[in-house]
Amino acid sequence: MRILKSTMLLFLLLTFFNVNAQTDEEAIKEIYKQSLTNGKSYDWLNYLSTQIGGRLSGSLNAERAVAYTKEELDKLGLDKVWLQPVMVPKWVRGYKESAFIESGKGKKTTVNICALGGSVSTPALGLKANVVEVKNFEELKALGKENIAGKIVFYNRPMQADLISTFEAYGGCVNQRYKGAVEASKYGAIGVIVRSMNLRLDDLPHTGSMTYDDLPVANRIPSAAISTNDAELLSTMLKLDKSTKLYFKQNCKQLKDVLSYNVIGQITGSEFPNEYMIVGGHLDSWDLGDGSHDDGAGVVQSMDVLRLLKESGITPKRSIRVVLFMNEENGLRGGKKYAEVAKQKGENHVFALESDSGGFTPRGFSFDCNDASFNQVLSWQPLFKPYLIHYFEKGGSGADVGPLKTETNVLAGLRPDSQRYFDHHHASSDTFDAVNKRELELGAATMTALVYLFDKYGINPITNEKQIKK
Amino acid sequence: MRILKSTMLLFLLLTFFNVNAQTDEEAIKEIYKQSLTNGKSYDWLNYLSTQIGGRLSGSLNAERAVAYTKEELDKLGLDKVWLQPVMVPKWVRGYKESAFIESGKGKKTTVNICALGGSVSTPALGLKANVVEVKNFEELKALGKENIAGKIVFYNRPMQADLISTFEAYGGCVNQRYKGAVEASKYGAIGVIVRSMNLRLDDLPHTGSMTYDDLPVANRIPSAAISTNDAELLSTMLKLDKSTKLYFKQNCKQLKDVLSYNVIGQITGSEFPNEYMIVGGHLDSWDLGDGSHDDGAGVVQSMDVLRLLKESGITPKRSIRVVLFMNEENGLRGGKKYAEVAKQKGENHVFALESDSGGFTPRGFSFDCNDASFNQVLSWQPLFKPYLIHYFEKGGSGADVGPLKTETNVLAGLRPDSQRYFDHHHASSDTFDAVNKRELELGAATMTALVYLFDKYGINPITNEKQIKK
Repeated sequence: MRILKSTMLLFLLLTFFNVNAQTDEEAIKEIYKQSLTNGKSYDWLNYLSTQIGGRLSGSLNAERAVAYTKEELDKLGLDKVWLQPVMVPKWVRGYKESAFIESGKGKKTTVNICALGGSVSTPALGLKANVVEVKNFEELKALGKENIAGKIVFYNRPMQADLISTFEAYGGCVNQRYKGAVEASKYGAIGVIVRSMNLRLDDLPHTGSMTYDDLPVANRIPSAAISTNDAELLSTMLKLDKSTKLYFKQNCKQLKDVLSYNVIGQITGSEFPNEYMIVGGHLDSWDLGDGSHDDGAGVVQSMDVLRLLKESGITPKRSIRVVLFMNEENGLRGGKKYAEVAKQKGENHVFALESDSGGFTPRGFSFDCNDASFNQVLSWQPLFKPYLIHYFEKGGSGADVGPLKTETNVLAGLRPDSQRYFDHHHASSDTFDAVNKRELELGAATMTALVYLFDKYGINPITNEKQIKK
Repeated sequence: MRILKSTMLLFLLLTFFNVNAQTDEEAIKEIYKQSLTNGKSYDWLNYLSTQIGGRLSGSLNAERAVAYTKEELDKLGLDKVWLQPVMVPKWVRGYKESAFIESGKGKKTTVNICALGGSVSTPALGLKANVVEVKNFEELKALGKENIAGKIVFYNRPMQADLISTFEAYGGCVNQRYKGAVEASKYGAIGVIVRSMNLRLDDLPHTGSMTYDDLPVANRIPSAAISTNDAELLSTMLKLDKSTKLYFKQNCKQLKDVLSYNVIGQITGSEFPNEYMIVGGHLDSWDLGDGSHDDGAGVVQSMDVLRLLKESGITPKRSIRVVLFMNEENGLRGGKKYAEVAKQKGENHVFALESDSGGFTPRGFSFDCNDASFNQVLSWQPLFKPYLIHYFEKGGSGADVGPLKTETNVLAGLRPDSQRYFDHHHASSDTFDAVNKRELELGAATMTALVYLFDKYGINPITNEKQIKK
C-alpha cells in the first residue's frame, strides 16, 4: 500500500511537472508563432526608418520618433504609457564633410570622411597638414611631440578579423575613436583621422561618439572617421611618400542641451505590481543612415514584447515595461535618467533586458546576474533549443540598462548574430533594407520568451524568499 | 607506492588527453584564423558570380565555371585535379517571359513570372485562360475536370512562416512547383502558375525544377512561377471576380543532352589513401541571378577546405577530395555520375560533406550516419562552441552526396542560418552582394574543422576495426 501511495505520488508529481513543462513549451511556441505570422516590429521599423529616418538626440527626427512611438504604444491597450523628460546634448553635423589626400607632387585624391559625434569643426576653410599614422597610443607616445606637433594623427588599427564576436573586435579598436583626440592633442596634433570601425573594405565612413574629457576648448582638435578603403589608400600613400598631406573640412558643432524624452509603456503586474521587469532599446540613432539596426530594431522588438505577451494570452504577474531610451549614442542621458527616477521612487527593478546589437537572427543572451539566476536561465535552455537559441553566457547587458544594476537583479542583453553588424554600424548603410523581417521577428519572440519565463518563475527566488522573510 | 604509481599514471593519462585536446583546439583555431584573415572563398565567389554569372547546366557559363574552378584548383598544389565527364540536360529559357492579369472588364495588370525549369513553351502568341486557384492537390481533385478543364491552375499555398527552419517550410510547399503540372494536366488544365517559394512579399518570381513524369508530349502544359506580391494580387482579383483571366507567354525549351563535367581535386591521404573523404557543392545554378548562394557559396567553401587544411599545416591521413558537382538543379546527373564511378572503381567513401544551403553564418551540421559516428560527432561539440557552432542533429545531408550512402559511412550537410535563404533562392536576387564575406568564410572554416576531426580520428572506428580484422 505504502509503495502504491509513493508510486501514485511520484506519478502525480511527474504529471504536474510534465504539465508545467508542456505549458511553457506551448506558450513559447505561441509567442514565436505570433511574432512570425502577426508581428508588428517590421511595420513599426519601416515607419521609424523610412518615414522618420536618422534620429540624433535633440533633432526634429528624434522628437518625431518620440511622438510616433508613444502614439503606437497608446494603441496597444497597455495600462500606462508616458513620456519621461530628460535633457539631452544636441550636436549637429552641419554641411557634408569633404576631404582629400594631397601627394607630395600636389595630386589630390578625394576620400570619404565624416565628423565624429561631438567633434569640433575645422577652420572654415578646412585644415591641411602632414599626417602621422599610428596603430595605438603607445606608438603615439613613442613618436612624441617632435614628430606629431602641427600634424594630423591618423589612427589606423583595423578590427581583428579572426575574432568570432565582432563586438569583441570593436572593443579592441574603439579607443582610437573615443579617446584619439584627447591623446593626440597631448602631443600638439591639430586634427585626428580614425579608420572606420568596419570589418569590410568599403567606401563608407562610420561615425560614433568621441570625447575631449576636460580639455580646454582651445585644445580641442577636429576629429573625423575615414572609410576603410580610404584608410588603406592613405596608409599606402604615406608609405610611398612621407610628405603626403591630408585636407579635411567639417563644420559640426555642439549646441546647448535640449529637452527630450524616454518613452515608456507598462502592463501592470497581476500579482507583484511593484516588481518591475523592463525591455528596451534606444530611440536615438546616428544621422548618416536611418538607424534601422542601431537601434530601431531594439526599439520595435521591445515594443512588440508587450504586444506579443498580450496576443499570446499571457497575463504577467509582474509589471512589464517597455522603455525607449533617448540619447544612448552620445550621452546615455536617457538610461541614467530612467535609473535615477526609478531610485527616487524606490521602484524594485528585478529584471532588465536590452536589445542593442542589431536586428539579426537571435543567437541567445548574455547575462549580468548572480549564479542563482544564471542557473535558473540555464535550466530553461531546452525550451529555447527548437528556436535555435543556444547562446547563454555571463557577460554584459547593455549601456542603457546598466545603471539599474543591483546585487540581486538580472540584467540581460539580446545577442543576435554579429557578423554583419559592423557593415552598417553608424554608417549610411544602416538602413531599413538591411533588416530581414524574419530575423527581426525572431529576436522579438526570443526576448518575449525570456520575459515570460522570468515573470512566471520569478527572479532569483532564493533572494526573494529571504527578503520576504525579513 | 602503489597509490603514487596510479596517481602518476592518471596524471600522465590526463596530460596525454589534455595535450590531444589542446592540439585539436589549436588546429581548429588556426583553421578559423586562416579562413577569416586569409580566406580565398570570397574572391573566388566574386569571380564566379560577377565575371561568369548564372551557370545553368549545358550553358556556356557552366562550361566557363568548369574551366575557371579547374584552373583555380590547379593553382593550389593538390595531388590531383581532374574533370569527370557527365552528360547533362540542357534547358533554355528563351526570351523573357511576360504575363498580365485581365479583369472581367478587360483591364490588364502586368505581373512578374518566370518559366519553371523544364517547362514547355506556351503557344507562340501566349496563353490566356480563366484561372482556378487551389492550395493543394486535394482541392484540385475535389474541383475535378468539370471545373479545371481548359483553365490555368494557380497553386497558391504559401510557405509556412512560423516554422523556424525555412527549409522545412520549403519542403511543405515545393510539391506544387515540382508536381503541379502533372497533377493539373490530369484534369485538363492548360497551364500552371505557382506562387514563388519565398517567405517575403516582393516582386521577384523564383524558378526551380518541375517534372512531367511520363506524360505524353501532347499533354505537357506550360508552367511558371509568379512573384509573391503578384500571387496575392491574382488571388484578390479572383475573389472579387471569378471571370478574371491570366495571360502568359514563355518560349523555353528542352534541347538534347550535352557533355559537361564534375570538377574534382584531391589531396592524397598519408596513411589511408584508399579512404576517401569528400566535400562539395554544385557548380551549376539557375539562370535568373548569378547563383551566389545557390550554390556558388558551397563551391568556393568546398574548394577552400582543401586549401585551408594545407595553410593550417594539416597533413590528412585520408584522401580528401573536393567535388564540384554539375547539374544538381535540374537532373542531379553529376551527383549520380560521381557515385557511379566511385562504385565502379571500388573507392571507399567514408565521409561526404555537402554545402548547399547558402553562404550564411554557419550554425552546425546535420548528419546521415549510424549512432556510433553520431556519438563521435557529439563528443566534438565543445570544440565548436567557441565558433558559435551549436547545431548537431541527425537528418539529411545533401542531394549530390546522397547517392554515396552506405551503412557505415558518414554523410553530412552544412547548416547555415536559413532565415534569408528563400529571399534569394532561384531568383534574380541570388547575387554576390547578398553574400557577406565573414559569414561565407566562417562556413568554410566550420567545414574544414569537421573534415579535420573525422580525418584525424577516423570514421566509425568500430566498423573499421571489424573490417581490418577480416
